[in-house]
Amino acid sequence: MTSTFTWPVRVYYEDTDAGGVVYYANYLKFYERARTEMLRALDFHQDQLIAERQIIFVVRSVQVEYLIPARFNEQLQISADIGLLKSASMVFEQKIMRDQDLLSTATVRIGCLDSETMRPKKIPENLLLTLRQ
Amino acid sequence: MTSTFTWPVRVYYEDTDAGGVVYYANYLKFYERARTEMLRALDFHQDQLIAERQIIFVVRSVQVEYLIPARFNEQLQISADIGLLKSASMVFEQKIMRDQDLLSTATVRIGCLDSETMRPKKIPENLLLTLRQ
Amino acid sequence: MTSTFTWPVRVYYEDTDAGGVVYYANYLKFYERARTEMLRALDFHQDQLIAERQIIFVVRSVQVEYLIPARFNEQLQISADIGLLKSASMVFEQKIMRDQDLLSTATVRIGCLDSETMRPKKIPENLLLTLRQ
Amino acid sequence: MTSTFTWPVRVYYEDTDAGGVVYYANYLKFYERARTEMLRALDFHQDQLIAERQIIFVVRSVQVEYLIPARFNEQLQISADIGLLKSASMVFEQKIMRDQDLLSTATVRIGCLDSETMRPKKIPENLLLTLRQ
Repeated sequence: MTSTFTWPVRVYYEDTDAGGVVYYANYLKFYERARTEMLRALDFHQDQLIAERQIIFVVRSVQVEYLIPARFNEQLQISADIGLLKSASMVFEQKIMRDQDLLSTATVRIGCLDSETMRPKKIPENLLLTLRQ
Repeated sequence: MTSTFTWPVRVYYEDTDAGGVVYYANYLKFYERARTEMLRALDFHQDQLIAERQIIFVVRSVQVEYLIPARFNEQLQISADIGLLKSASMVFEQKIMRDQDLLSTATVRIGCLDSETMRPKKIPENLLLTLRQ
Repeated sequence: MTSTFTWPVRVYYEDTDAGGVVYYANYLKFYERARTEMLRALDFHQDQLIAERQIIFVVRSVQVEYLIPARFNEQLQISADIGLLKSASMVFEQKIMRDQDLLSTATVRIGCLDSETMRPKKIPENLLLTLRQ
Repeated sequence: MTSTFTWPVRVYYEDTDAGGVVYYANYLKFYERARTEMLRALDFHQDQLIAERQIIFVVRSVQVEYLIPARFNEQLQISADIGLLKSASMVFEQKIMRDQDLLSTATVRIGCLDSETMRPKKIPENLLLTLRQ
């Protein structure tokens, strides 16, 4: 993908903690929403992938940098790019922006599994082709 | 049960919001932990009930009163009592205490379902007997 | 308000539990998003209310009915209506719909507090007037 | 510290997702509980550090490996070790074990801030000394 996918997220009370900022684990929710919506924009729906093709994506590792805290009621932009694409795994490079400020970056490694056996399985060919474009 | 079951909960950052207090949805997590641990104390384990007897408990309704807010790092006591026990449902009466202060009360109605069909199913006789004592 | 405010919510993995459905506490997050967005649509922003007028809204009680479970990846509509409006409190009547199916209802009682003293405070007159229309 | 601090965590429904396993963001909650309890075991309480010394700890970065999924109702052990200790920051090396199985590892970099200015601040000398032992 040459163009970066971006998804808007509003910060609600549910996302914040007593420090007045978004709780550090909750950035992972925001990052996942952007990945899910990027796949949906490409017409891949994770509930259908499970039901029809026994495919489930699982997170193998994450690396997150917290640069500037996000706060209650702010509007954020979460981006997702494919950094590396292999036959049964992929790496997303992601960012959280607030207007022009970079709040956080993440590198997320995803594995493709058979939803029955939970063993590695090849990413469907049409998804691979779509992601490569 | 004549005696009330009580389970301790520590408030972590994950439980709080930017208002400096425990987020209102998270009290429901605390209430559920006490119900789960009460069943465990009676030697009923929900993962075994699903795997061995196809039984799952679901929440049908909750009524929660928020009286005094709980805060970061506080130690709370969550209680659970059986208020009403029927063949396929039960009502828990619950409280959250901080020392002598009553912070919240809840009435939680639980249904017993077949985990395959998701239709109402009788609570196992030995669990009913144990809960009645 | 004669017209009902409605806010769309997509169900992500973060919202679900091992039962395959939305976790019962997380419906309270959905309900709050709709209340927050209804106030925003009326041009009231909770971060500004705190910063400029020392006003914070807190939940006093909730009553939730869980009728049909919501599942991963579904698109829901969360509604919010003002049921009762007093000088320092209000009651929201809310629903969660999935297309034509009613999944859940909630009655949420909200108190208006001074954000410094945390004591009851009158709802600002212009907000009261707007909500009454 | 030559000895590793360990904190037990029970997996509840609140922690799991529709994949039947602990949701990937929620491991960060478990890791934080162990860090908080390690400090408490050394008689450092984060609410007192804020109130009495204007000190708040914030997460600067996390690296998490997800090796084996944790499931509903399992009992886990979360460990925390100080890997690197500087004047205004520290690195925790953490693990999640289920009996003899290593489920996850994490490296968490923490910064010490002034809770008023949110600028870097030296870790209190007595905490530094305690952590070094």
